[in-house]
Amino acid sequence: MLQELNRIFDRESDRFIEQWKELLRFASISAQPEHEDDCRRCAQWLAAHLESIGLPSRLLETGSKPVVYAEYKGRSDKPTLLFYGHYDVQPVDPIERWFHPPFDPALKEGRLYARGAQDNKGQLFYTLKALETLRTKGKLDTTFKVVLEGEEENGSRGLNASLSQWKELLKADVLMVADTGMAGAGVPAVVVGLRGIVSLTVVLSGPRYDLHSGVHGGVAPNPAQALARLVADLHCPDGSIAVKGFYDGLEEPTAREQELAKSVAMTAEQYTQLIGAPPIAGEKQFDPCIRSGFRPSLDINGIHSGYQGRGAKTIIPAQAIAKITARVVAGQDPDRLLQAIIDHLRRQTPAGLTLNIEESEAAGPGLKLDPDSPLATKAQKVLKQISGQPAAFLWEGASIPIVSSLAKISGAQPLLVGFGLAEDKIHAPDESFSLDQFKLGFLYAASMIASF
Amino acid sequence: MLQELNRIFDRESDRFIEQWKELLRFASISAQPEHEDDCRRCAQWLAAHLESIGLPSRLLETGSKPVVYAEYKGRSDKPTLLFYGHYDVQPVDPIERWFHPPFDPALKEGRLYARGAQDNKGQLFYTLKALETLRTKGKLDTTFKVVLEGEEENGSRGLNASLSQWKELLKADVLMVADTGMAGAGVPAVVVGLRGIVSLTVVLSGPRYDLHSGVHGGVAPNPAQALARLVADLHCPDGSIAVKGFYDGLEEPTAREQELAKSVAMTAEQYTQLIGAPPIAGEKQFDPCIRSGFRPSLDINGIHSGYQGRGAKTIIPAQAIAKITARVVAGQDPDRLLQAIIDHLRRQTPAGLTLNIEESEAAGPGLKLDPDSPLATKAQKVLKQISGQPAAFLWEGASIPIVSSLAKISGAQPLLVGFGLAEDKIHAPDESFSLDQFKLGFLYAASMIASF
Repeated sequence: MLQELNRIFDRESDRFIEQWKELLRFASISAQPEHEDDCRRCAQWLAAHLESIGLPSRLLETGSKPVVYAEYKGRSDKPTLLFYGHYDVQPVDPIERWFHPPFDPALKEGRLYARGAQDNKGQLFYTLKALETLRTKGKLDTTFKVVLEGEEENGSRGLNASLSQWKELLKADVLMVADTGMAGAGVPAVVVGLRGIVSLTVVLSGPRYDLHSGVHGGVAPNPAQALARLVADLHCPDGSIAVKGFYDGLEEPTAREQELAKSVAMTAEQYTQLIGAPPIAGEKQFDPCIRSGFRPSLDINGIHSGYQGRGAKTIIPAQAIAKITARVVAGQDPDRLLQAIIDHLRRQTPAGLTLNIEESEAAGPGLKLDPDSPLATKAQKVLKQISGQPAAFLWEGASIPIVSSLAKISGAQPLLVGFGLAEDKIHAPDESFSLDQFKLGFLYAASMIASF
Repeated sequence: MLQELNRIFDRESDRFIEQWKELLRFASISAQPEHEDDCRRCAQWLAAHLESIGLPSRLLETGSKPVVYAEYKGRSDKPTLLFYGHYDVQPVDPIERWFHPPFDPALKEGRLYARGAQDNKGQLFYTLKALETLRTKGKLDTTFKVVLEGEEENGSRGLNASLSQWKELLKADVLMVADTGMAGAGVPAVVVGLRGIVSLTVVLSGPRYDLHSGVHGGVAPNPAQALARLVADLHCPDGSIAVKGFYDGLEEPTAREQELAKSVAMTAEQYTQLIGAPPIAGEKQFDPCIRSGFRPSLDINGIHSGYQGRGAKTIIPAQAIAKITARVVAGQDPDRLLQAIIDHLRRQTPAGLTLNIEESEAAGPGLKLDPDSPLATKAQKVLKQISGQPAAFLWEGASIPIVSSLAKISGAQPLLVGFGLAEDKIHAPDESFSLDQFKLGFLYAASMIASF
């Protein structure tokens, strides 16, 4: 079976790449309203593509971005598989840092460069190619449902709001998700932990208009300075988060979980080599892999106030804005945490300035799965077959907030296996996915689906 | 004399306004290289205008923006007057907050709105109209030199670099500058103090590229957070500046200076009413007017990092940038202070991040003049005649760094009288100057020049 899949991939890969490029040409940025049409056209393309490979499909309207739904009827004595992916992508700025336009895919030294090349269009597309291959060969005999949403990068609003109506439709035994990474080049992984996320935009206002910083310096309160202080003071000097009650309810990792996590962790040197900075943020008393896998974090994703150009503009800016997200882990209540952050910021806002919270959202809780479950063990076996390497277990720092709610509504057990690597630079300029990773994903998806 | 000036102004004001508008249509933003040509065309317009009102003029090249120079030969037994003004203006962003395009002057309810309407095109232009009027009436009998530079808002580089060659050319007894404000509506003022300025742009770099804040949150150092901490920690909790040695050498105000300053100061309520925020920045133990007049200050004029758009972009930004200026007072050494700020920031930069200082400049020292000098007393008398109000003495918080060096090289005694008000919103969107202020300036300039 594996040999045949290998042969098919090598024969069909040019066609796969051309189709994958078509998918990448849609600028389906969910966070930016001007890309509304691009998102819908991308969903329509995917529905048509699913039809063309033999999976009856349709668009499910959600009130915001449509969900692509497809269903293939298999044998009733087999488990039902549900595949979740997302066709939306992150914004592209800073656009000037891309070597090639982000929606004009470029193949270079075995990697395909484009926004979404990996996250998640690349990973969902190798799954579709695996499905197509199995069906063509008459090897697809499980019932297979596909849900591709268009708002994962922007809070999964539409899907979340619709889930309760789709309980019957989504009923399944296993929830396959290909939106995660490997433990390192050539070392595949089953992800058994994800962090949840809360996000907020904070606007601090002071003077009614930008003031002359000579006339008013040392007299008028400066929102840029005050917001800098506010966001700086969200952390304690020891790297922990200063918000009262932030760590309440947090589930400590077991000894086995810590051991598995540490067994595949990068060294500090490897990490520094990779990103260009050492792994020194967060709580000093924990190893980096424990911090990202089992501890919450809080980051300023953006801070903006006042003059940005060359030369001088000597003002006290009228307002300052910060975009903040926190990652939460299993046991922490995202709604309560979001409120705790807001309360903390309000308490610390200095007199004379006004704090406004915009776009706040508690998108989802953290998730922990059992690395010793039969499903995890089965996946580990398949991964070893295709890669020749024992698969690792990973507690990823990232979030796919919808996974928890999708698992709950469908009754399915999550199975998170993906083939991302840090060098893919997802969410950043020059995002890419290698053909080797794509092929590994294809081999895994086909073998895993066939194994049920 | 005053009656005649009044009559002339009322008869000629339409023509004055049309010419003033012409001057305001040049987008002579000195800090932005794309406006290089606008600056030169503005200088050419002014030189031609000075010629047309009978002052032989020419452009003096400086290596950057040209200086407009004009000279009228008067009686040799009279003092020589030197007038300094600047034809460059501040940048216009945020452009969307202007109710009318900044370089398309709009007259509305007795105020002319445009970038530079007051600072400094409005104030220099009433001076030119006063000169024109005196000359036409045969009342201009002092030697009068005019120096209009094009880089006051950007460090006066060209003029500063040329001063030593122009020692003979600029020789004068009195240096008239009209780039300051009144003590309040209808209360003219002689400015006897200015703060100096140092400025720097700080870039803090961390990861080589923007990172996914889920994968890397709590592990990778965040330049936005670290820069927020760095700039927040430039101040102590009591509002003083935390940089070591920052207050060294500072000249304390005398009892008479403090009394004069406080006698015309706004109340906290008036200040809050005016700008929309209370006067609560800086060192708590001093009154606001003492803080802005006699104490140094430090402001973040801009801070920028990461994502700014709507929705979420969950990144750890690769770098963060801050634009910082400090205002310094008489006795403080700007070069030493700039270095002290840089040293402080370097000391506080956390491991794993790289600090770069860009565009740093110690533009000029603070200035204090004697409110009881014969020149100040003469100006006070003229101001009382034209306004009916006793003139105030002001120690302004703003900087005109070139005044100190111009006074030194020309041997002239500075005389700083201008008619700005806080509601003119200089450096901000919707800058304006009222026709009443313009007229007062005209009456003062003509009367003052004629008084020698």
